[in-house]
Amino acid sequence: MTFIDIMDLVGIMVFAFSGTLMAHAKKMDGFGVIVLASVTAIGGGTIRDLLLDAPIFWLREPSYIYAILLGCIVAIIWLNRSKKIPDKTLELADAIGLALFVVMGTQKAFSYQVSDVTAIILGTMTGCFGGMLRDVLANEVPMIFKREMYATCCIVGGAVYVLLLKVDLTETIAPFVAFAIVLSLRLAGLKWKWTIHVFKYDQK
Amino acid sequence: MTFIDIMDLVGIMVFAFSGTLMAHAKKMDGFGVIVLASVTAIGGGTIRDLLLDAPIFWLREPSYIYAILLGCIVAIIWLNRSKKIPDKTLELADAIGLALFVVMGTQKAFSYQVSDVTAIILGTMTGCFGGMLRDVLANEVPMIFKREMYATCCIVGGAVYVLLLKVDLTETIAPFVAFAIVLSLRLAGLKWKWTIHVFKYDQK
Amino acid sequence: MTFIDIMDLVGIMVFAFSGTLMAHAKKMDGFGVIVLASVTAIGGGTIRDLLLDAPIFWLREPSYIYAILLGCIVAIIWLNRSKKIPDKTLELADAIGLALFVVMGTQKAFSYQVSDVTAIILGTMTGCFGGMLRDVLANEVPMIFKREMYATCCIVGGAVYVLLLKVDLTETIAPFVAFAIVLSLRLAGLKWKWTIHVFKYDQK
Repeated sequence: MTFIDIMDLVGIMVFAFSGTLMAHAKKMDGFGVIVLASVTAIGGGTIRDLLLDAPIFWLREPSYIYAILLGCIVAIIWLNRSKKIPDKTLELADAIGLALFVVMGTQKAFSYQVSDVTAIILGTMTGCFGGMLRDVLANEVPMIFKREMYATCCIVGGAVYVLLLKVDLTETIAPFVAFAIVLSLRLAGLKWKWTIHVFKYDQK
Repeated sequence: MTFIDIMDLVGIMVFAFSGTLMAHAKKMDGFGVIVLASVTAIGGGTIRDLLLDAPIFWLREPSYIYAILLGCIVAIIWLNRSKKIPDKTLELADAIGLALFVVMGTQKAFSYQVSDVTAIILGTMTGCFGGMLRDVLANEVPMIFKREMYATCCIVGGAVYVLLLKVDLTETIAPFVAFAIVLSLRLAGLKWKWTIHVFKYDQK
Repeated sequence: MTFIDIMDLVGIMVFAFSGTLMAHAKKMDGFGVIVLASVTAIGGGTIRDLLLDAPIFWLREPSYIYAILLGCIVAIIWLNRSKKIPDKTLELADAIGLALFVVMGTQKAFSYQVSDVTAIILGTMTGCFGGMLRDVLANEVPMIFKREMYATCCIVGGAVYVLLLKVDLTETIAPFVAFAIVLSLRLAGLKWKWTIHVFKYDQK
């Protein structure tokens, strides 16, 4: 098990944790928890693999399922004890998961010889679409449609990654730079509440 | 046409019936009826086949489409005549469809050499995800997230099926035992209103 | 670039335009605009390709992505200037896109040797499911479930197309006839507000 594998499972657990929070907010039962946690954790990667016609990454690797269950159990114990989630910790963990997923998604898309633009799109999907599906299943307008920096980080991080590969940087550095960019942009966006609106709404 | 094929089409019709009821409750028109009925009936199996990269089961077998249309027509006539659905009959039919779908889904997943856990997951998806998609399209929080025994039956039934195959029972008995378990658990869950909550909510 | 390719990109742009309008109505930000526009424009075709196990049509053709971005930009500028959309123009453009998508979807399904019924279904999905996904992501009951002529046009157009191919008409005429039928049915349906209800609701 490499460092990357461990970080991957950490990302899965954090996203499963976030799915469980939503299931709790919607007063769902045990099955709702499992589905929402799973969809958040592996939904983005599943859509990426379906589009690439790649074997679904978790289908023959039960370790992902166990990481999800672990994330659920930790979240359930937490919620039943304190009912207060330390926002800062969760946001940091979520940002780490996001940065990892974007880099791994872009990397995988590349290995299937898609164009640069498509690799960035699939990397962004890997990071963002799990949370989007979670919100759809919970009958909410997806959060990422209203908190833009979330997705913008993925697009910028993916684009930088693609650029670094172009200038022929050895592939051992590019993923770490891209990871650092997504992570720092996300944390900065949270801290200073960045949003990018494209419509001029009436000020009310 | 074998006994299994007939039961399969019966399951499809029952689920199409249930999709039509939802379309009626949401005051949809003819196309809404067809889509909701189809999604309920073949949505779970379609997701299973997409994940397994198997040929979609209904794509080259129009009989599934005709079974759906038949289910819709029966439901429409029923609703326009009496406007009262006998709950018990529908629940029994739905439980039979569910039990069939879980067994067939687990079986199909196995024939694609996935791990035991994954086979149980795909069997559960085959049974539950059609209804989940129906509720998402009707803009509702999926019922199965709040009525847990529905999904738990599938998980338990799938697990028993996998276990029976392990102890090398001949494959002619295993599916029937698994079918009986899902069906009886589901009916018992309905009768005694079993739920498994994982969160301690404030009692109000 | 052939005439068909150009019309295809026009259809994509029009549907991206319609997704942007929904994102505006829901007060989404830049990322919401891009996702809703993309899903409306390429969602139906993506589902068709997934079901056919065909390579996803936009994955190796970035021109689709650029057409979507162009559609978004035009819509954003329009909305920020006038805030009034000329309904008639948009409906005409949408009807053209719809007619194109249905014909191309049916054609593609046929080239994968599916049955007639399935080809009609996949053609209808290509035309309608993008808008359905848009509405689901925007947390609305899909419009096409309540405005039936939209989908009925697709089914009729697809069926006529299949019939024309049967009577061995040269394939250069069939698509144009089918296109004209979908388009004129859609415009007539809009003009005279046709709907086909299957339920007898209480008149209130």
